[in-house]
Amino acid sequence: MERRQFIQIPGPTNIPDRILRSLSQPIINHRGPEFEALVKDCIKGLKEVYRTNNDILIFPSSGSGVLESAIVNLFSPGETIVAVSQGLFSERMAAIAENYGLNVIRISKEWGQAVKLEDIREVLEKDINREIKGVCLPQNETTSALTNDIEGVSKVIKELGHPAALIVDAVSSLACLPFETDSWNIDVVVSASQKGFMLPPGMGMVAVSNKAWGLIENSKMPRWYWDYKAVKEKMKENQLPYTPATTLLFGLKESLKMISEEGIENVWARHEIMGTAVRNAIKAMGLTLFAEEGYESNTVTAILMPENVKYKDLAELLRLKYGVVIGGGLSKLQGKIFRIGHLGSISNMDTYAVMGAVEMSLYELGYDVELGTAAKAVAETLLK
Amino acid sequence: MERRQFIQIPGPTNIPDRILRSLSQPIINHRGPEFEALVKDCIKGLKEVYRTNNDILIFPSSGSGVLESAIVNLFSPGETIVAVSQGLFSERMAAIAENYGLNVIRISKEWGQAVKLEDIREVLEKDINREIKGVCLPQNETTSALTNDIEGVSKVIKELGHPAALIVDAVSSLACLPFETDSWNIDVVVSASQKGFMLPPGMGMVAVSNKAWGLIENSKMPRWYWDYKAVKEKMKENQLPYTPATTLLFGLKESLKMISEEGIENVWARHEIMGTAVRNAIKAMGLTLFAEEGYESNTVTAILMPENVKYKDLAELLRLKYGVVIGGGLSKLQGKIFRIGHLGSISNMDTYAVMGAVEMSLYELGYDVELGTAAKAVAETLLK
Repeated sequence: MERRQFIQIPGPTNIPDRILRSLSQPIINHRGPEFEALVKDCIKGLKEVYRTNNDILIFPSSGSGVLESAIVNLFSPGETIVAVSQGLFSERMAAIAENYGLNVIRISKEWGQAVKLEDIREVLEKDINREIKGVCLPQNETTSALTNDIEGVSKVIKELGHPAALIVDAVSSLACLPFETDSWNIDVVVSASQKGFMLPPGMGMVAVSNKAWGLIENSKMPRWYWDYKAVKEKMKENQLPYTPATTLLFGLKESLKMISEEGIENVWARHEIMGTAVRNAIKAMGLTLFAEEGYESNTVTAILMPENVKYKDLAELLRLKYGVVIGGGLSKLQGKIFRIGHLGSISNMDTYAVMGAVEMSLYELGYDVELGTAAKAVAETLLK
Repeated sequence: MERRQFIQIPGPTNIPDRILRSLSQPIINHRGPEFEALVKDCIKGLKEVYRTNNDILIFPSSGSGVLESAIVNLFSPGETIVAVSQGLFSERMAAIAENYGLNVIRISKEWGQAVKLEDIREVLEKDINREIKGVCLPQNETTSALTNDIEGVSKVIKELGHPAALIVDAVSSLACLPFETDSWNIDVVVSASQKGFMLPPGMGMVAVSNKAWGLIENSKMPRWYWDYKAVKEKMKENQLPYTPATTLLFGLKESLKMISEEGIENVWARHEIMGTAVRNAIKAMGLTLFAEEGYESNTVTAILMPENVKYKDLAELLRLKYGVVIGGGLSKLQGKIFRIGHLGSISNMDTYAVMGAVEMSLYELGYDVELGTAAKAVAETLLK
């Protein structure tokens, strides 16, 4: 029987039926009035999700492309930035910057450890000549399933009066975790379609502050496709300089409508409850969370593989018997952890079922757990 | 009444229902076995359309992004290339190359004029020290609705024994006009989803020859997102280095199935008939084609605006009364021409209806034409 699949990787996420249907609309002219109205609607909705009055730019791209865009627009070869490196995706940002000739001061953390405010403070305090032009970090490092304190980092920069721009990879956290672009003074916020927005992958979004526009004016990095100024100029007409991913904009409009109907604070609260329920079920089953305590993400949970259970066996059993697709450990964490995504389109009963499937699969693979343990923990969390 | 729209701009094209439906499939894991099978199928089908055994790489991107990718992968700052500049899109390629510090020798043609083989021969013959690393041109310049002789250009390069790589923008021509990547020795062929492939925009494709891989080895251009080597490496596992535009791959699989069912040579023949029918109708109505005779494109037709008819009035009437969306003149051609796209998902009766709508709109705007003229010309072409 072909049945519903639960795509519980940390993005792309399951796509709600309303959005799936919106994707199969006939194409429209990307230089015509319907398209301009569509972009206008989307930007208005995006500003509510980003909590910003800054410019929002849209790219036909994956999230990684938009991360690159921040580097090539704000900086010049030879300039210095700070990048937190605590997993595959934060390290990617550092590597992109080095590729483009930036001098990268890494704040390297063990995978699983969050960046601490002292780490940021220390490196910025040492920078007496104010040579650091930017600080880059993810809100959510999906490799290890942890969330950094972005508001705290922003406050440290402000307290020190350091002029560095703050660039946040919010790809796997925006429209899931609380985020305040304006009141936290974030200069560039990168996101993508396939996580909190519950859309297929293929579109990246970026919010750009006035301070960032100042840096962009002085940047001497070669660029064309990612050029923020060209995109901003064309977006004044609610168009893009090149052919946009129109279908994803159809979907985005529907997604933003759904988010607005639920209310963004309720979306955040739902993710907090789902994250808590998953963690409670994991702990009740006697398993160990991978991310540092107090920094566990509410969009994805990483769990140490129990002894005597192989990741491949667990993932295969979940996929084939229960239709649940989970994520494995990336790079050096391969085989050591498994990851459950619980972001975007996820509800009480999804979480209940997914954790049940995890429990039954572990049980079948010989892990010592009483059946019903996960369900009880999820139920208790939901009823609290 | 909300009715079917005819999107007759030179891409994005109308999307067939089969493909629209394929786009609304639930998401799958881009690191899982279903995705790998999907990519494998798509690459196999793409090689048949491209007529190549070269590597084909896929990017979540618009066509313009993939044009940029060719520049940043093959060359190094300070190197010299030749670029034909004969419209907005060919000039874009030249401008991107200059942005990245290349020395660009432009072969500039009046908009509406095709590049001649003598133009190419002349510039390459002058290059005694073989400093020219690449020749870039479009198969189809949509600005002016003309088609260059790519096979001829390739032969000139071969005859002269010049080592320059040949880079062809086939965005608005692949899967429409005859194209032979391998037998014409094209080193980089750029295409995108929203033209001959009848898909929504958001995916770019590129075929890369062995000779191109040699250049890539020596290129010193900074790049990350567009890096061909990284994409090739990951595509060995039928995955991409970053999150792919999964939904467009669902669509691409269906599109390739449709192209294969029709047969690629029949697809080419259909475009030739549609192009001929449109031009015959235009001429029968006493209007003037914009592109140089003998080089008119079979994917798009550009027509001089008749005196006393304003483009805006024609486009508005077509859109509102007949549901037909046409394209205008770009940049310096604004208001001077109108353009009718006839590529991708286009059939006999689409062309018949579209040309009828054009005729009726011109008639209503005071242009002197006998009703039925366009229909007669299309019918005669189809019945020949």
